[in-house]
Amino acid sequence: MTIRSISILGATGSVGASTLDLIRREPEQWRVVALTAHSQAADLARLAREFSAEIAVIADESHLPELRAALAGSTVEAVGGPAALVEAAARGADITLAAIVGCAGLAPTMAAIEQGRTVALANKEALVSAGEVMTAAVARSGATLLPVDSEHNAIFQCLHGNDPADVRWITLTASGGPFRDWSIEQLVAATPAQAVKHPNWDMGAKISVDSATMMNKGLELIEAFHLFPVGLERLRIIVHPQSVVHSMVEYRDGSTLAQLGPSDMRVPIASTLAWPRRMTTPCAPLDLAEIGELTFRAPDEIRFPATRLARQAAQAGGAMPAVLNAANEVAVAAFLAGRVGFTRIAAMAEEVLGRYAPSAPTALGDVLAIDGEARARAQELLELV
Amino acid sequence: MTIRSISILGATGSVGASTLDLIRREPEQWRVVALTAHSQAADLARLAREFSAEIAVIADESHLPELRAALAGSTVEAVGGPAALVEAAARGADITLAAIVGCAGLAPTMAAIEQGRTVALANKEALVSAGEVMTAAVARSGATLLPVDSEHNAIFQCLHGNDPADVRWITLTASGGPFRDWSIEQLVAATPAQAVKHPNWDMGAKISVDSATMMNKGLELIEAFHLFPVGLERLRIIVHPQSVVHSMVEYRDGSTLAQLGPSDMRVPIASTLAWPRRMTTPCAPLDLAEIGELTFRAPDEIRFPATRLARQAAQAGGAMPAVLNAANEVAVAAFLAGRVGFTRIAAMAEEVLGRYAPSAPTALGDVLAIDGEARARAQELLELV
Repeated sequence: MTIRSISILGATGSVGASTLDLIRREPEQWRVVALTAHSQAADLARLAREFSAEIAVIADESHLPELRAALAGSTVEAVGGPAALVEAAARGADITLAAIVGCAGLAPTMAAIEQGRTVALANKEALVSAGEVMTAAVARSGATLLPVDSEHNAIFQCLHGNDPADVRWITLTASGGPFRDWSIEQLVAATPAQAVKHPNWDMGAKISVDSATMMNKGLELIEAFHLFPVGLERLRIIVHPQSVVHSMVEYRDGSTLAQLGPSDMRVPIASTLAWPRRMTTPCAPLDLAEIGELTFRAPDEIRFPATRLARQAAQAGGAMPAVLNAANEVAVAAFLAGRVGFTRIAAMAEEVLGRYAPSAPTALGDVLAIDGEARARAQELLELV
Repeated sequence: MTIRSISILGATGSVGASTLDLIRREPEQWRVVALTAHSQAADLARLAREFSAEIAVIADESHLPELRAALAGSTVEAVGGPAALVEAAARGADITLAAIVGCAGLAPTMAAIEQGRTVALANKEALVSAGEVMTAAVARSGATLLPVDSEHNAIFQCLHGNDPADVRWITLTASGGPFRDWSIEQLVAATPAQAVKHPNWDMGAKISVDSATMMNKGLELIEAFHLFPVGLERLRIIVHPQSVVHSMVEYRDGSTLAQLGPSDMRVPIASTLAWPRRMTTPCAPLDLAEIGELTFRAPDEIRFPATRLARQAAQAGGAMPAVLNAANEVAVAAFLAGRVGFTRIAAMAEEVLGRYAPSAPTALGDVLAIDGEARARAQELLELV
């Protein structure tokens, strides 16, 4: 048995918690290097003590005194601030789980990639907003990128041992969200409370709204475009309300491989932690006889234009996916605040995409500048309402 | 590009025809060594000429003059009889497709395995009746065995790159056959004409009846037991009427991999011909949005006891699977001849299993003797009726 080292960037979030739940079940196999959190100092200190982490990093430095106090008398080094976060990510570990939400995750994720080891990626912005910058870094450093998101992890598993040149289709499944059967008239009147009730996964408000607009699937399409070198025209989406099939790969011989499983993030996380082997999880076995039926239908880009916008942004490349992501975030926040209607989310994103076309980013600084400017443009649209 | 050599044992049957259809599409990549047939000399001669085979073998020697005449003036060597069939199989080729139906396929399949190269296996008896004898030969010779049957090929693909020790379940899918919704009373009165109408695959009468009794799935369970070293207790069956999911493997992390595809034997055949790569087939892409739904239910071993019998035979091991297979063949023939009712098929198989328990075969001759004696015992049951 080999002991492996791990760092978890975003240890107090839901992906971090699921990862630590798995490590807790086989502690003798893991050595924890760095655990990080944004501002939850007490939780971070508790986890760092439990797993005997080398270092605990609180990104929001104002919470560093609290972290230091909570770790007093322990062997854990306590540091704070964005630079400390990047330094901790750059310490290197056999595997780094990059699970910080938002653009705040970009610099530490990049630092982990630059170590040339294995990065299990759960930060969406790394591939949506900084796709070309990140994949260039992966190519330079020789890092192994393992996708944690259930759809991309499914595709990764279905591609294992195969040549991407043999792929006919990669099909991302989408639950279709809570509004999948709603008319346009109903969508126009949809409320935040209705949008945040996701049928299959327990998620935060922002990602629940992204599921309702299907922007989450659009952003996943962009991520898949960067992760799997088969070309945008071989990527497609199918609506599968039960979310049992997490995604599929069809090969040129007519074989389709699909990955199925429970709606439990510990399954894809375990797949990355143990890759290319498997580890045991406590997740319930799949009982298809109990589930009874799996249904599929084509997506409707009239009612849900977000996937079309994402495809256009991926096709255009350069800065456009970052613009789409930033504009969508502002629009979703405005929807959740009751400032705009549900169908305005995609409309706002499309308007910003049409008005702001900066040149392609070549470094993370460019990505952050584009992200900021796209947010400002989206805010301007809000002021006009 | 490497030219590969291939022999097809059973070239005029449906698997042989599907294989040659694929080779016809990329003739520059293949060199055909041996083509064999049971008695269809004219068809065999035509194929041997088309593919410039080295040798054409007719198993029923009475048709050899016809084969010789049809191949006169060609470069194809024409031979006949069971010994010639085995010699042709022993010539060796990069890949041998073993697709002779019934126990007549055992000796040539064994001869191909003993060459220690790749054998794509479509002969059911090799693993059902001669399972331990064949797997011992595979282990001795170092041959690579690739399953052609759609279910086993699906499992093989889903296992690729994984460790069998990590498997939680292998699930064979079963269409459930034309009688899957029938009551026991209806099954008692089922006719041969009703039994041979299979909903998804175009098959011969014998295998259609096996699908209706679910004995085909029982025999596939025995084959899977020999092909995939996970233990009988990790093999299970699920009824899936659409036959789109060909089988599944669940791992201990909660990931299930499934292989899906059209009901076209060229898909699994292509998978074996190109393995570990992929080759293009003309098979239609999978359109799950068009298919709409996939349903699953637990098998009912009260109405369909065949899978229970097969599991018991596999558990007992030794000669019992051969006894089951032989008794079933006699019972199915009696059903098709109108001599016994549909539910008597499994009952006869169970009675023979209960009365005849020879010691385990250690060579093909033992298997053939057991097969013959089990048939005789089943015939005796028929005389008693």
